[in-house]
Amino acid sequence: MQLSCPTPKLDFDVVTLGHGSGGLLTHRLLNQGVFEILGDVLVNSEHDGACIATDEKMAMSTDSFIVSPIFFPGGSIGDLAVNGTVNDVAMCGAKPLYLTLSLIIEEGLAVSELWKIVDDIAIACRKAGVKIVTGDTKVVDRGSGDKIFINTTGVGSYLPKASISPSRVSKGDAIILTDSIANHGMAIMSKREGLAFESEIKSDSRALNHSVESLINAFADQIHLVTDPTRGGVATVLNEIASKTNLGVELTHEKVPVEDQVAGACELLGLDPLYVANEGVYLIFCPDQLAEEVQENLKALGHRPAMIGKMVEEHPKQVIMDTPMGGKRVISMLPGSQLPRIC
Amino acid sequence: MQLSCPTPKLDFDVVTLGHGSGGLLTHRLLNQGVFEILGDVLVNSEHDGACIATDEKMAMSTDSFIVSPIFFPGGSIGDLAVNGTVNDVAMCGAKPLYLTLSLIIEEGLAVSELWKIVDDIAIACRKAGVKIVTGDTKVVDRGSGDKIFINTTGVGSYLPKASISPSRVSKGDAIILTDSIANHGMAIMSKREGLAFESEIKSDSRALNHSVESLINAFADQIHLVTDPTRGGVATVLNEIASKTNLGVELTHEKVPVEDQVAGACELLGLDPLYVANEGVYLIFCPDQLAEEVQENLKALGHRPAMIGKMVEEHPKQVIMDTPMGGKRVISMLPGSQLPRIC
Repeated sequence: MQLSCPTPKLDFDVVTLGHGSGGLLTHRLLNQGVFEILGDVLVNSEHDGACIATDEKMAMSTDSFIVSPIFFPGGSIGDLAVNGTVNDVAMCGAKPLYLTLSLIIEEGLAVSELWKIVDDIAIACRKAGVKIVTGDTKVVDRGSGDKIFINTTGVGSYLPKASISPSRVSKGDAIILTDSIANHGMAIMSKREGLAFESEIKSDSRALNHSVESLINAFADQIHLVTDPTRGGVATVLNEIASKTNLGVELTHEKVPVEDQVAGACELLGLDPLYVANEGVYLIFCPDQLAEEVQENLKALGHRPAMIGKMVEEHPKQVIMDTPMGGKRVISMLPGSQLPRIC
Repeated sequence: MQLSCPTPKLDFDVVTLGHGSGGLLTHRLLNQGVFEILGDVLVNSEHDGACIATDEKMAMSTDSFIVSPIFFPGGSIGDLAVNGTVNDVAMCGAKPLYLTLSLIIEEGLAVSELWKIVDDIAIACRKAGVKIVTGDTKVVDRGSGDKIFINTTGVGSYLPKASISPSRVSKGDAIILTDSIANHGMAIMSKREGLAFESEIKSDSRALNHSVESLINAFADQIHLVTDPTRGGVATVLNEIASKTNLGVELTHEKVPVEDQVAGACELLGLDPLYVANEGVYLIFCPDQLAEEVQENLKALGHRPAMIGKMVEEHPKQVIMDTPMGGKRVISMLPGSQLPRIC
């Protein structure tokens, strides 16, 4: 595996319980490995906590990542752990600034895999423009974990022009999706099931904070809500919004962008792309008359947006989709999971 | 198990993968269970992130807890996860305000155990005076985790009078320990090994933030450093300080307080209490001439302090202990762990 910096040379190939002891082995793993790879992304701290500079109101979000497999087309648990939390903070209408990084490693993880993951973390942090301020490393015995779990917690400062909240979503609001869906979930599933397609399906894992910031700079409080449909997909997040706003969601099936390859994989596995996880797209709720302009703006930012529906007074708390056959279908929240351990 | 509030009644007894899906099952687990138990400790947030009010400079710390067993004399992984991070923030010289809470649950965990853990979290938050602002729940398949891992990340505002840093530790500084050591580690080990003693050894797991705040209010920047000897114990943390300050540590064996019961258990298991984890004591570094007054102050706060050593110019980066026989012993950092999964 190729890292973006020279591979640290240590005299062990796998992580052992001792590396989680807090003793010399932990120090070596961190000082001669992890910290070296993180490089400029790491804010130096000589204590168990870190000092962060903030303004008066901060957004904060946390996520633990348990995705399996830990490497997949288009990403790894490393960049996913950065992008996921960066995006959660961005979806508050905030500019992500700092992350904490906590690793739970299963004894026996190949050190080369750990370095690759930490390298992915460093690259993702640089792209998102965030710094890691403090962290933690634990090791569990073989069979008590699964290679590596990563928790990241992010803080960010609110964008001065932002006024983002589910409570601001109003009747008539357009629902705009930035890009085609289900890529992340299907990339993981294809890898897990060993499926080969003509061209590989790649995860859409990426940081969305720069895009959200541009949009809010352009439209200020006209952007009522931004939210990213990760675990549970577009269907789950729209149900949450319908439920919180006491409004209905009207969805148009043919407007929801899904790449052919991804749609094919979904059909093969009997999955509905509306419920499949994404890690690089988001939904925008704004007044209907702005919908065109917002989409133009998104295109200029490199997205391929579509207005997939709107908020209505009818059928409160329900998501109803127009089907290609001219019928209507209730898109309910699934009780459980189509795809476990997707993020 | 008795909770501090009525037990949530749900129609499932164990956690399943579906509870980690983000769908209806996740919502029920959270809304009808976790949130109800957390009660006033939870800051309501309608988004995936939370808004926190802060001042300009904040302390931030993160920790993942993987302790096994998850229930032990004197505590559980729940209160440990709160106290551990609260204490890390307090040791920065800050007042802990907010925590994030992220659960990684192994499929099959008894719901009654989960409720007990969440209840312990709520009680510990109330004692420490902190609020949970946002969280995350993931479920891994059976055999890919071990009951439950918990990540907490804390933020706090710096105490105006505090000036805490390893770089402030000076030649001649007294090293004061607030209470007797090794209780946490030996409570876990006794439970793990099924050892029975005349009276049960209990973990010292508790929040230290109120104590640190009182001390700093009283002595301001005369307190050079506070630090809690958790994983790796007093020996490891003193080695870290010696290494960072380029000074030596002179330790007096007979001054280090260890309860008879705990000392006996250590001897039985062949462990040195200096390396055993603590979760409710801390070390204070301050000018020698203040040592008496600081100890009086600590006694008034309910501690049983002892001055266990001092910082010296001799043997830089080394911890040397006077032994009862009149000899001297180098207390080095252990390469690995005496006790894995202690926190």
